[in-house]
Amino acid sequence: MAIKTVMKPKVINWYQIEPILSKIDVIEPMKQGFIDYSKGLAEIPPVGELIMEDPPGDVHIKYGYLKGGKHYVIKIASGFVGNNELGIKPGQGMMLLFDIKTGQPLSILIDEANLTDIRTGIAGAITSSELASKNVDEVLIVGTGVQARYQTKYICQEMGISKVLLWGRDESKIDKLSNDIKSDNINVEIEKNLESAVRSSKLIITTTSARSPLVNSEWVQPGTHITAVGSDTHDKCELDYNILAKADLVVADSIEQNVLRGEIHQALKHNAINEADLIEIGCIFENPQKGRKNDEDITVADLTGVAVQDLVIAEAVYNTFDELND
Amino acid sequence: MAIKTVMKPKVINWYQIEPILSKIDVIEPMKQGFIDYSKGLAEIPPVGELIMEDPPGDVHIKYGYLKGGKHYVIKIASGFVGNNELGIKPGQGMMLLFDIKTGQPLSILIDEANLTDIRTGIAGAITSSELASKNVDEVLIVGTGVQARYQTKYICQEMGISKVLLWGRDESKIDKLSNDIKSDNINVEIEKNLESAVRSSKLIITTTSARSPLVNSEWVQPGTHITAVGSDTHDKCELDYNILAKADLVVADSIEQNVLRGEIHQALKHNAINEADLIEIGCIFENPQKGRKNDEDITVADLTGVAVQDLVIAEAVYNTFDELND
Repeated sequence: MAIKTVMKPKVINWYQIEPILSKIDVIEPMKQGFIDYSKGLAEIPPVGELIMEDPPGDVHIKYGYLKGGKHYVIKIASGFVGNNELGIKPGQGMMLLFDIKTGQPLSILIDEANLTDIRTGIAGAITSSELASKNVDEVLIVGTGVQARYQTKYICQEMGISKVLLWGRDESKIDKLSNDIKSDNINVEIEKNLESAVRSSKLIITTTSARSPLVNSEWVQPGTHITAVGSDTHDKCELDYNILAKADLVVADSIEQNVLRGEIHQALKHNAINEADLIEIGCIFENPQKGRKNDEDITVADLTGVAVQDLVIAEAVYNTFDELND
Repeated sequence: MAIKTVMKPKVINWYQIEPILSKIDVIEPMKQGFIDYSKGLAEIPPVGELIMEDPPGDVHIKYGYLKGGKHYVIKIASGFVGNNELGIKPGQGMMLLFDIKTGQPLSILIDEANLTDIRTGIAGAITSSELASKNVDEVLIVGTGVQARYQTKYICQEMGISKVLLWGRDESKIDKLSNDIKSDNINVEIEKNLESAVRSSKLIITTTSARSPLVNSEWVQPGTHITAVGSDTHDKCELDYNILAKADLVVADSIEQNVLRGEIHQALKHNAINEADLIEIGCIFENPQKGRKNDEDITVADLTGVAVQDLVIAEAVYNTFDELND
């Protein structure tokens, strides 16, 4: 009845992806992806979202393409907190690459949401590196989950950070995190008091799924940069919105998304900032003079995660896998 | 760093799906799916859409779940008209089934959009059977594509239709369609004039991708039922909107979707009908007395395709494949 296609998409499982990650460098492609996105060269529809109640879980579908590119990506990533009790990873999902000229599926990366975690870590690192004061050599990581690990890993790689301060609400988790990071030869200190930690830090990465602010605006000192990666829905929130009001520069990964999700959404809702004052990280990667002006500025970057990041990392994995298995 | 899962989703290709379709009967499950959907038991976010321009193509992402069900589905179906010239099927895509309690992917049905075509055919047949006058034994099929074939196949099965009238704009395609259907032992006639065909038909299925009306309201006689399956975007349109104004009953598969897409969207836009007068096919499957009242009523069903149909057919294929390969 129909023309038969012979092409079958390449299914690549996480155990096949993990060993080739060391061969993949997406720092520059991801910066370029953000630049292209902010130049309007990407077609990225609003994030699809599916909420489950019993047991609680959510699924995000991010998808899109770069004009002139070879592929479109559809990325599915879910989070089910109860999975831990079942011995199952809370994050699950896959990235799908399709031929942009025919719609044929080329590759199914069953990444169990790990590539999402990794591209989020990399985006955090390149954003923090771009916006933090140049003399920073310490980072305060707020939170104890997967992103605390990936942000630490990539920020240390990207910025040559020598000391990591950790703060988390759960002592059992913070010890485990500390041990995990220490094993990677990083100097780690656990902070007991978030206020004093924030007051003494010039680079802060927040990675929690908090639904009310953890960081108070009064604690934030001149010269500080904060990258907030935890809040990616309309209700999650890690920062007191007055931090954004007080900041000299508020940076979004996608203004279109951030007005609906994350810290920027919260600050706009409380009329603490103006949408017109926002700038996208892609604009700053293209014109670094639009970033931090001096060592006294307070800068905040709010990252909600954009499909262009998924496209960049999925293409890199697919191409590298292809080369290695040719 | 994270708990390792061992589960790998079952990848089932179209060549493995096609032979087991004869073992699958989704008529009753699909009716039940529509009933549950109309009772508010389904969680179906708005359709995701990605448009490509050069070459032209579109991708639809439909997804959702039934409360109390085992799975959520994400269905990707694309259409690239230029594929024909490349010897590639225009429709491509896959259906993904996930565990609703953990988010783990259970199955990847690489159906090349065929299951979408099939569930659309089945939905058309059960809708037409429910709404057409009981004494109907002929059907007029408008259009010559894949849906002309599937609507014919399933409507003949479901309603015991003995004669099929075909009308299409392209004579070369209509001859091919006629031959394809004839080979299935159905009495087929090609109509040269759409007006006279419509005037003499009590059951009409429109299956085209027309962007301006093909069927004029003045041609439609009392007692006629029309099922329109071709128009699934905000601009496609097969029926003169006055047909919906003139109809005694206008039926949607999803009022939420139909106000944005298809014939109902067009008629609402022209103020030809009121949203309050619409009824969903699921309500009629549950309460058949809400359907056709007598043999003189004109009824119109506008089907845009709902994720619950994808869920039903994907689950049926997955379960059957599992049983056969146990």
